[in-house]
Amino acid sequence: MAGYEGTIAALSTPEGVGGIAVVRVSGPDALHIIKPCVSRIPPKALQATFTPFFNPEDGHFIDDVIVTFFKSPRSYTGEDLLEISCHGGRIIPALILEVLYARGARPALPGEFTRRAFINGKMDLTQAEAVADMIHAETEKSLKSARVLLQGRLARELEEIRHLLLDAASLLEIGLDFSDQDIETIDPEDIRDRIERGLTHISDLMASYQTGRILHDGARIPIVGKPNAGKSSLLNAILKEERVITSDIPGTTRDYIEERINHSGYLLRLYDTAGLRDTRDFIELAGLEKTKKLMKDADLMLMITEFPNEVPALSAFLEGQEIPGLIVLNKIDRLPEEDVRTALSYTKPDRPVFAVSATKDIHISALMDRILDLLQNHYVLNTESVMISHLRHQNHLNAAKKALLSARQALDEGMSPEFIALDIREAMGALDDITGKTTSPEVLNHIFNRFCIGK
Amino acid sequence: MAGYEGTIAALSTPEGVGGIAVVRVSGPDALHIIKPCVSRIPPKALQATFTPFFNPEDGHFIDDVIVTFFKSPRSYTGEDLLEISCHGGRIIPALILEVLYARGARPALPGEFTRRAFINGKMDLTQAEAVADMIHAETEKSLKSARVLLQGRLARELEEIRHLLLDAASLLEIGLDFSDQDIETIDPEDIRDRIERGLTHISDLMASYQTGRILHDGARIPIVGKPNAGKSSLLNAILKEERVITSDIPGTTRDYIEERINHSGYLLRLYDTAGLRDTRDFIELAGLEKTKKLMKDADLMLMITEFPNEVPALSAFLEGQEIPGLIVLNKIDRLPEEDVRTALSYTKPDRPVFAVSATKDIHISALMDRILDLLQNHYVLNTESVMISHLRHQNHLNAAKKALLSARQALDEGMSPEFIALDIREAMGALDDITGKTTSPEVLNHIFNRFCIGK
Repeated sequence: MAGYEGTIAALSTPEGVGGIAVVRVSGPDALHIIKPCVSRIPPKALQATFTPFFNPEDGHFIDDVIVTFFKSPRSYTGEDLLEISCHGGRIIPALILEVLYARGARPALPGEFTRRAFINGKMDLTQAEAVADMIHAETEKSLKSARVLLQGRLARELEEIRHLLLDAASLLEIGLDFSDQDIETIDPEDIRDRIERGLTHISDLMASYQTGRILHDGARIPIVGKPNAGKSSLLNAILKEERVITSDIPGTTRDYIEERINHSGYLLRLYDTAGLRDTRDFIELAGLEKTKKLMKDADLMLMITEFPNEVPALSAFLEGQEIPGLIVLNKIDRLPEEDVRTALSYTKPDRPVFAVSATKDIHISALMDRILDLLQNHYVLNTESVMISHLRHQNHLNAAKKALLSARQALDEGMSPEFIALDIREAMGALDDITGKTTSPEVLNHIFNRFCIGK
Repeated sequence: MAGYEGTIAALSTPEGVGGIAVVRVSGPDALHIIKPCVSRIPPKALQATFTPFFNPEDGHFIDDVIVTFFKSPRSYTGEDLLEISCHGGRIIPALILEVLYARGARPALPGEFTRRAFINGKMDLTQAEAVADMIHAETEKSLKSARVLLQGRLARELEEIRHLLLDAASLLEIGLDFSDQDIETIDPEDIRDRIERGLTHISDLMASYQTGRILHDGARIPIVGKPNAGKSSLLNAILKEERVITSDIPGTTRDYIEERINHSGYLLRLYDTAGLRDTRDFIELAGLEKTKKLMKDADLMLMITEFPNEVPALSAFLEGQEIPGLIVLNKIDRLPEEDVRTALSYTKPDRPVFAVSATKDIHISALMDRILDLLQNHYVLNTESVMISHLRHQNHLNAAKKALLSARQALDEGMSPEFIALDIREAMGALDDITGKTTSPEVLNHIFNRFCIGK
């Protein structure tokens, strides 16, 4: 872990104007570095201590601060850690950090406090990732899925699988040791059973990824419809009713607009494909590269029309999709009741027809509830169970699965126990990559670079 | 103070992604509100206490937090105050605040924590203003001028003047009481002496406003020159060398660009008048409304030319200005040495000629030092003395001065002591407005609305 030693310091609160800022210092010299800067050093751990903070070089007063000392190992990082709570804004925290750097602390790298917590065994890698997830969480549900991770429940499930595989590998390896003594120690059925149970467990976890991703990153919902069907009006009507998180995120290709809202704690990402104005038939849209991508990645489809007689075709189109969808019949304030009733009769369980008026704000909030119902039924959005919400985890699980499939095949083909054991060990290695037991520095760098500085 | 009671809560760190966020709760019910949300209440004041934080309504866990209790009156506000340090980001602090609001805390108004500190006698109004100044400070020097204020030194100087005037007013009023007893108690010379001393003191403070404003808000430096003289190149060369604070602030009229840099701790605000491209003679620029305003408000003028033979005219122009100025002869890498020497001979103490090459980065950092010298000599930028940095203070001082001038005139004209005393009392009232002894709720609102929420 060269390059990750010494005593580090950083601003741990966001930059910008605020009442308070907190500077953290962690490492073996933390106390030594701060001592000459303050006139009162915390008399003991966890004792918030008012004191002026000086630049010991020139004796200049910088700010009145509150210093709290978290003594190793009872601190976030597991090292001696001091928190300096000072006035907020740009300049005071910067001056305090300047002094700390001059006294031998070095600027913390992104996520380095949490990286040290990981290295010092305060948490495994999935928990470290959960810290970043919690900070970046945009809704209550994404927070909850992060918390399940933070509690270490994924790590415990992985440990169970690992245990199963370790037993299988050990049995195979013991068999190898005694093979020249002609003792038959390996029961292939027992080994197969362990491999199968591991595979089932891993597949279950992998199947939770869709749920985890939706809870963690939000459900992707493109709004597709002809020009003038009311895509933008619908989006505006929804935004008026909902807790908007961020608005007007232009799509990477600038062909659509993304709006993120928090509906009952779930993050919904709505895409207005209004950029595609010149297309005559919106089912043809599906043929366009840009919409194809949006629809391919979608978790739910919102198709909007103002013509009741288009509903049957839309319903048939949705029928051919794997994801749930909803047909929105817009402008019902201007439609004959009879036509609306006929359109609504095309409702199917996973593909309901819903009648609204976006501009008159009729049935919009009911529509949102219906969208959530569809998502919950289809994806079983349960935040209490262990789930995979990181592509990294999914990739490692996939590697473990492949190795186990290869082990099973070797077993079926009656290959030498050492080959089977090797495959099983490889699967264990993939699981260890998830929790960080064997993770390479490159992977660690990749993970902690997602963090902000100061965490 | 109706509308400013109860227990308040707010996020005290800036919004946004960061490792830590701090939520503060202040008021009589602070402890009562938090108690059911945590499993460990701080056993005593100033003891940082790890605890899970729950929503007591539904028992849902929100975050592991550190709670510190600052017991009245030993807190920032003077009330019971609790700090909840939680994971940063958008959602966790929001969930914690939701719980606190549901339990009876109300959202704090901007600056309300500091307003309570003021109301509870923890600081006077100039100190409260200094808190906001410190948070918004952009350079070390503006921080220092705020700190002088925070130490209460302005308030103490004002108290001295007030004392002087109170004596004078009392003497006059005692004289009134005894006037029917034919006792001559009023010595006009004594009264005049006190008024004069008050006036001198007030004038000194008012004279410090220019210094205070430059330290606090920065020195305004327009760069004026013909098209192609190198205004933008000069600005770019300066920005490359300096600590840029904010770049590219378009002027209110969008006719110029403002760049703010931190040079040796001083805030310099450079204006590129590049928008004025179509003017042939840049001395004529002074006649344009937009430039007039910039030059009228300037603290130092930077005039730039590439023609040595224009220097005498520029020097003469600067001679007619009240503020210091500097003539920058640009592109010296392309000029005959003899011409440069002649141009430099037009240097005058407050109006030097300086030869640079903006594109070749010749003498740029020396130019910046020269600019600072000029400012320091002309404005005596001493951050250690008491100075006025707020227009509000200046206005109140002006009101006090007017009232004292009126008192002096009344004395000269031999008017009745009661009129003189009335004027003196009015001057005292104006001084009290500064420290907040008699400030109206409207003035308080105006001052604290400058604050961010959470301070």
